[in-house]
Amino acid sequence: MSEMSQLQQVLDRVDADFDNSLDRLFALLRIKSISADPAFAGDCKAAADHLARDIATLGFAAEVRPTAGHPAILAKTNGGGKDPSRPHVLFYGHYDVQPVDPLNLWHRPPFEPAVTSHADGRKIIVARGAQDDKGQLMTFVEACRAWQSVTGSLPVDVTIVIEGEEEIGSKNFVPFLEASKDDLKADFALVCDTGMWDSTTPAITTSLRGLLYDEVRIKAANRDLHSGIFGGGAQNPIRVLTRILGGLHDDDGHITIPGFYDGVKDLPADILAQWAKLNLTAESFLGPIGLSIPAGEKDRLLIEQVSSRPTCDINGIIGGYTGEGSKTVIPAEASAKVSFRLVQGQQPERIRKAFRDYVIARLPGDCRVEFTDHSSAPAIALDWSMKPLAAARRALTDEWGKEALLIGSGASIPIVADFKRTLGLDTVLVGFGLDDDNIHSPNEKYDLQSFHKGIRSWARILAAFADAPR
Amino acid sequence: MSEMSQLQQVLDRVDADFDNSLDRLFALLRIKSISADPAFAGDCKAAADHLARDIATLGFAAEVRPTAGHPAILAKTNGGGKDPSRPHVLFYGHYDVQPVDPLNLWHRPPFEPAVTSHADGRKIIVARGAQDDKGQLMTFVEACRAWQSVTGSLPVDVTIVIEGEEEIGSKNFVPFLEASKDDLKADFALVCDTGMWDSTTPAITTSLRGLLYDEVRIKAANRDLHSGIFGGGAQNPIRVLTRILGGLHDDDGHITIPGFYDGVKDLPADILAQWAKLNLTAESFLGPIGLSIPAGEKDRLLIEQVSSRPTCDINGIIGGYTGEGSKTVIPAEASAKVSFRLVQGQQPERIRKAFRDYVIARLPGDCRVEFTDHSSAPAIALDWSMKPLAAARRALTDEWGKEALLIGSGASIPIVADFKRTLGLDTVLVGFGLDDDNIHSPNEKYDLQSFHKGIRSWARILAAFADAPR
Repeated sequence: MSEMSQLQQVLDRVDADFDNSLDRLFALLRIKSISADPAFAGDCKAAADHLARDIATLGFAAEVRPTAGHPAILAKTNGGGKDPSRPHVLFYGHYDVQPVDPLNLWHRPPFEPAVTSHADGRKIIVARGAQDDKGQLMTFVEACRAWQSVTGSLPVDVTIVIEGEEEIGSKNFVPFLEASKDDLKADFALVCDTGMWDSTTPAITTSLRGLLYDEVRIKAANRDLHSGIFGGGAQNPIRVLTRILGGLHDDDGHITIPGFYDGVKDLPADILAQWAKLNLTAESFLGPIGLSIPAGEKDRLLIEQVSSRPTCDINGIIGGYTGEGSKTVIPAEASAKVSFRLVQGQQPERIRKAFRDYVIARLPGDCRVEFTDHSSAPAIALDWSMKPLAAARRALTDEWGKEALLIGSGASIPIVADFKRTLGLDTVLVGFGLDDDNIHSPNEKYDLQSFHKGIRSWARILAAFADAPR
Repeated sequence: MSEMSQLQQVLDRVDADFDNSLDRLFALLRIKSISADPAFAGDCKAAADHLARDIATLGFAAEVRPTAGHPAILAKTNGGGKDPSRPHVLFYGHYDVQPVDPLNLWHRPPFEPAVTSHADGRKIIVARGAQDDKGQLMTFVEACRAWQSVTGSLPVDVTIVIEGEEEIGSKNFVPFLEASKDDLKADFALVCDTGMWDSTTPAITTSLRGLLYDEVRIKAANRDLHSGIFGGGAQNPIRVLTRILGGLHDDDGHITIPGFYDGVKDLPADILAQWAKLNLTAESFLGPIGLSIPAGEKDRLLIEQVSSRPTCDINGIIGGYTGEGSKTVIPAEASAKVSFRLVQGQQPERIRKAFRDYVIARLPGDCRVEFTDHSSAPAIALDWSMKPLAAARRALTDEWGKEALLIGSGASIPIVADFKRTLGLDTVLVGFGLDDDNIHSPNEKYDLQSFHKGIRSWARILAAFADAPR
């Protein structure tokens, strides 16, 4: 039996078994594995147990491994990695999901998955985790199942590691990686937690923006003041905070922090030309969220603004009286959460210092400022000439009938840097999410086509890895 | 018995009875008459009943009158106003108090009044309402008591009206005024809800700033967004809000809204000279609240900044994620509460329109804005040559041994405009509060001396009114 005909049998098997694949995904979606809320710790454990049992049916040695937080799943094909002539991949996903509030905005219960129709007729799977990341990780698991059931084995050796704390920062998973190095050896890593270019165009993500998240608190008087008595004479920390934050962007959308763009390079001309051809329009990208005007640097394409350019967003702000009605208070303090998406060439800690220096330089004499560190992760740029990437790209192009694109993602996936640092592995990022999947929001969904062709895509990618030069 | 010796007897009586005056104030302070919280409606009624009974013991016909909200007290000296040869004054106060939260910042229970020592040795009465306005209104009531007990009558006819909704905007009291016009006839009104210049210098307030309070809500996308996917491309309403609010003041502390200062006049040179001599310093005024640099218009004296100049304060701001930790959200909306202290020449509704026009002119194409009306009250400037004012000033100067000052207050007391509009009455504003009384804040206090010499002051003022040319 030729490999080609083997692959075709596997793809046929995916199609024939798809209703069962959906049932297995639904079983996972019904488990309320919200990692952020301690009330759901038992559900997280149940999701890990469920997945380990499911993966064990594919001929993997699968076990639930404790961490200092929610458990991880570690599964290896029998003899996985022992034969150096076979490629060996490490697949990563996460079973934990975001909280579901505000619940009243969901059109159906978030843990009762269903296939419904999108307004434009697309069939969609609706549930918390339908995409991020249960739906995505199950595309890989179901691809393995099809290979296993047709051929009794997989075309490459596979180690699967699935964590339960991605949505809360993986702080217990990274030490687990360190401690489990020997069990996690592989040639490269695969992550299925990214998106397609659009619903018909597959993509491999080759760059990820980094993130620097800081909190700033401005303090003035030693207590809240009555604005009748002190208004005009006493410094108001909300006035100071808005003045400082309001100056972070200039009229053209550039960030004004001195040194912010140091080290940031323009895209190579050929990539820029390739991206320009993609013609990401405000209408297609911003239209669905009710917007029409790109808000970033005016001298950049929208696709650059959201994937290759660094940004600054104020994610939260609070100060003074925020209840119903009015109160004539001059508050003693005001604070904001500010984050920066970073690109290659920017060092998170230098950006943190530049931001803080910017704030301090604009602080009136009477005010004090306190900062709180939150996340920090550098940008990731993968090697575009990496061999497995070419193989994956070929397989995706075959499945979708359209050239798979190499794209930059605006988001951060810190695990990619952790794999490189801890295990020395490069990562191939393939995923089937769409921008309208409402991840982290009410009514999260995953296109039925993303799930189905996602499984078929992985089935092809595994075959391509087996064939690829190493 | 000459009037002078009568007055001396009354003052002696105030001194001799002071411990009882304090007991009567404490009885009122123990009643939890928080008007804002419906849970305390019974306490508000109890405070009204208590005060009406107390005032009836002074020979007044006193009754509790219902309003559409918390009740008011209306009390008249017998035959009050029937003899046109006697001056007739309408005294106003309010028995309701502000909420007490945050309770944990109080050093003792807010409704268990006590005399304690201030850090600098001054004796103070500590309780919610100790100053605003129970302590202040009781200075007048106790002055009437002293006159009544020494002479069996009062030197002028008196009507007392006390409301229970001042802290929540008097919206049911103003219709009550309209409906009770005939019962409220008088020559002029007295309000005891203002402050002294400092702890040894009495003052009459002759101008009050107005207030315009607006709320602005900026909306962008149709839902909260993930800043990884949309950051850089999608407009962030917090960025828009901070940019707009951050531009409300220029580098010299002037408000930048076009037309904001239209109609605002400089102080007459003689008054400015008089105020300059008062030498209100940053050290004395701002030092106690932990500040040192006047934050208003740089080309104005601090005393102008806080009493005769219009101001803008952001009283509250909220948007995005404000909980613990971090969330990479671009929120769908952000909002702020903004208020303006107004002076003579500024019309509240024109300022509201100018502010809204300012916001709208700076709104990016993709954003929408919603405004919510809150309070609106014009500034008040009293007639400095008003005859009862000269009498009150003379009496205060006699009591305190220091020339009583005519000052402008930075705060708004809307009832003054209501008395003029509804009853045609001018108001004399005399009060004994100090800037460090913590009104509306935890640990509200009233200096024991303010209460004691406040009673003596009113005793003298009533005598002075009887003697004054009309």
